[in-house]
Amino acid sequence: MLKINREYIEKLKLLIEDEKDQELLSLIIDLHPADIAEILESLAMDDAKYLYLLLEGGLASDVLVEIPEDDRRRFLAELPAEIIARQYIEYMNTDDAVDVLGELSEDKQEEVIAYIDDLEYAEDLSELLTYDEDTAGGIMAAELVAVNENWTVQTCLKEIGRQAEDIDEIYYVYVIDDQNILKGVLSLKKLIQYPTQTNINNIYTRDVISSKTDAPRDEVARKMEKYDLVALPVIDEMGHLKGRITIDDVVDIIREEAEKDYQMASGIMGNVSGMKIWKQARARLPWLSIGFAGELLASRVLGSHESTFVIIPGIAFFMPLIVAMGGNVGIQSTSIVLQKLAGRSNDRETLGYKLLRELVVALAMALFFSILLFLFNHFTGNNKVLTYTVSVALFIVIIFAALFGTLFPIILNKMKIDPAIATGPFITTTNDVLGLLIYMSIGQYFFNLFG
Amino acid sequence: MLKINREYIEKLKLLIEDEKDQELLSLIIDLHPADIAEILESLAMDDAKYLYLLLEGGLASDVLVEIPEDDRRRFLAELPAEIIARQYIEYMNTDDAVDVLGELSEDKQEEVIAYIDDLEYAEDLSELLTYDEDTAGGIMAAELVAVNENWTVQTCLKEIGRQAEDIDEIYYVYVIDDQNILKGVLSLKKLIQYPTQTNINNIYTRDVISSKTDAPRDEVARKMEKYDLVALPVIDEMGHLKGRITIDDVVDIIREEAEKDYQMASGIMGNVSGMKIWKQARARLPWLSIGFAGELLASRVLGSHESTFVIIPGIAFFMPLIVAMGGNVGIQSTSIVLQKLAGRSNDRETLGYKLLRELVVALAMALFFSILLFLFNHFTGNNKVLTYTVSVALFIVIIFAALFGTLFPIILNKMKIDPAIATGPFITTTNDVLGLLIYMSIGQYFFNLFG
Repeated sequence: MLKINREYIEKLKLLIEDEKDQELLSLIIDLHPADIAEILESLAMDDAKYLYLLLEGGLASDVLVEIPEDDRRRFLAELPAEIIARQYIEYMNTDDAVDVLGELSEDKQEEVIAYIDDLEYAEDLSELLTYDEDTAGGIMAAELVAVNENWTVQTCLKEIGRQAEDIDEIYYVYVIDDQNILKGVLSLKKLIQYPTQTNINNIYTRDVISSKTDAPRDEVARKMEKYDLVALPVIDEMGHLKGRITIDDVVDIIREEAEKDYQMASGIMGNVSGMKIWKQARARLPWLSIGFAGELLASRVLGSHESTFVIIPGIAFFMPLIVAMGGNVGIQSTSIVLQKLAGRSNDRETLGYKLLRELVVALAMALFFSILLFLFNHFTGNNKVLTYTVSVALFIVIIFAALFGTLFPIILNKMKIDPAIATGPFITTTNDVLGLLIYMSIGQYFFNLFG
Repeated sequence: MLKINREYIEKLKLLIEDEKDQELLSLIIDLHPADIAEILESLAMDDAKYLYLLLEGGLASDVLVEIPEDDRRRFLAELPAEIIARQYIEYMNTDDAVDVLGELSEDKQEEVIAYIDDLEYAEDLSELLTYDEDTAGGIMAAELVAVNENWTVQTCLKEIGRQAEDIDEIYYVYVIDDQNILKGVLSLKKLIQYPTQTNINNIYTRDVISSKTDAPRDEVARKMEKYDLVALPVIDEMGHLKGRITIDDVVDIIREEAEKDYQMASGIMGNVSGMKIWKQARARLPWLSIGFAGELLASRVLGSHESTFVIIPGIAFFMPLIVAMGGNVGIQSTSIVLQKLAGRSNDRETLGYKLLRELVVALAMALFFSILLFLFNHFTGNNKVLTYTVSVALFIVIIFAALFGTLFPIILNKMKIDPAIATGPFITTTNDVLGLLIYMSIGQYFFNLFG
């Protein structure tokens, strides 16, 4: 628990330069692996590698798990399978090991597993690797403490002491029958409170919340969040206990999903903070390019209405307003429907009801702003055709943007495409182009009518 | 763990109508409080109240904690202090009780606490209520298991069994000295593994991660996330152990903060999913109104350049492009700097470095898109003044938007204003108005030069 500051980093840099290994080690060896990873991140690549290679055994593996995926991938790519297996993977919990193995090619995965001496552990890894990484099976660990429903408190305590060797922390003890079917859960508190000869059959909780191995990971996250669980047992189709998921992994998932949505909405692909300049530009260019192409299209649409601009130049003055209102309403609608699709709120509404509600809200907002705009133009003495055009166009564009912003993510979701891509520059650009088309058409229509 | 579906809700509605209390109770009494809360939310207010009042004691309190704050506030407002104290608060953990009490007026808080029979519990609540709700003290619970550093494993186990009466689940046992100073942490695993006569002084972990009572709650969340903690002890300035924070509360904080940012970026105030139509419109109107006002201003800016539109109507065609590119770049820059300000990534960069990096990225992007636009206009045969105007304007607007989008949240942050308000419609609207001003000025300048 130290504050990593500039001076500390500078000190490390000097020691690395002078190759003072013992002094370096004494400075970092007592730190938490997460802190060491943070230090490595703030050093230049070569310095970080030098420092990291001073670490050994369990600490080296713990730090490896904490560093960013890109760096780890690059580091492991240079190492032979035997080193990866014996110096890193063997020290890890199965869930971390599977994450790291998942970053290697399939051939290398097999090679690494073949070098692992603990056969039971190797087998666990092979099985865990068969699960999709976005499912409960893909994030669970095989390490857990399980006791038989027929045991006494005393047998359980003895057995737990033995099993717990491999496990950092015990949160729950799972109760299984002779066929390894999950029957319930037993709290350590009860084991401590009850007399040693008590049969656990009388004290364990039968109502245990679990997930199937193929449950999507965000469903797992929501379940643990809703029921305030610290660990969740994972079972197969038959009810056999296969592993457990701990809350720290779920916290990462919650954070990741929330940040992904936010980045999508901001038009950034991936996590750019701390990225090198070129990589950062690359993460931002795709969305900007979509916007750019869309707006070039818009310029062509507008170009085909050149005569309208010549006759009523005022129509140009309100283009930003029409476009911005459509865009803002569209983003709101999309983000509301996305929250529902992500299941963060109870969603027992039908599609029809969603659209209807959005329509009513949109009608109210469209009416409000159109009237406001009409009054503004009326009292600032703008020309009559323009006054009607912009108010009617604003009304239609708001309704259109709300419905499009609601429907589009739903359609993407039905097509099994991540609906979050509907946010950000994508929805704004589409709204821009279609909104301008609506605006200019109405302008032309009114001009033909009144002009 | 049931799937709450339409039929189930319909069944409940009928039973409520017929006042079949026993049948109703048998249907819901075995459910998890979080599920019961979800059922209540999907019933009409009167039905929900009827069903809720059938519940008693611990279950009623557990459900009360799970329902949305607005509903709870409304429900409690109608109840006398004595009922709130004896039927609800007394059954809760201190952290939940403090959350609920925090929703009452200060007078009513005192009244409720005066009715609590367990004096030690009442005292804990009074003390917890003195902490700011956005700090570690405000979210911690007083319930915890602590043992003295001089005890043996046997004494500890006995004492833990006694203390654990009040606590749902034990994750860590804290070790204190005679003055209640936090010395370390002891895992239940070790207590089970070591012989009963072992002095815990030899087995407890001295390096314990803790927070001060006045630490901001998002700092607590980040700490627990970084170090993968399930519970965090909270100490005062002198090191006295005051309480502990559990991960389930922190998960809620992480979710809340992430959703708040996302909603801000989408221009929505508060959580609108499931809201009534009128409330939803109200949550969306403020940002839309800011956008509306800004764009009306933009229309005046454009109006003052009417002559330019008459001479080069083509300048209108590229307005949406200039505005959109400025807006999109601005949103990206803001969201990147917000991630840094929120401390979600290591931030050892100075302000100057942040701006410099953003400037370099912006220069690269501005150059890329300006050249692309120049080529597009050149080959589609647009007029020369227009071609130069839009490319130069695009270049300047992108740089401006990037710098403004970076600086603005930093300035807000320095002024102790939540920098997240810089996102969404606010930054886009400002960019729109200033971007158009830049665009039209350059247009006029080039026209005077070449026209």
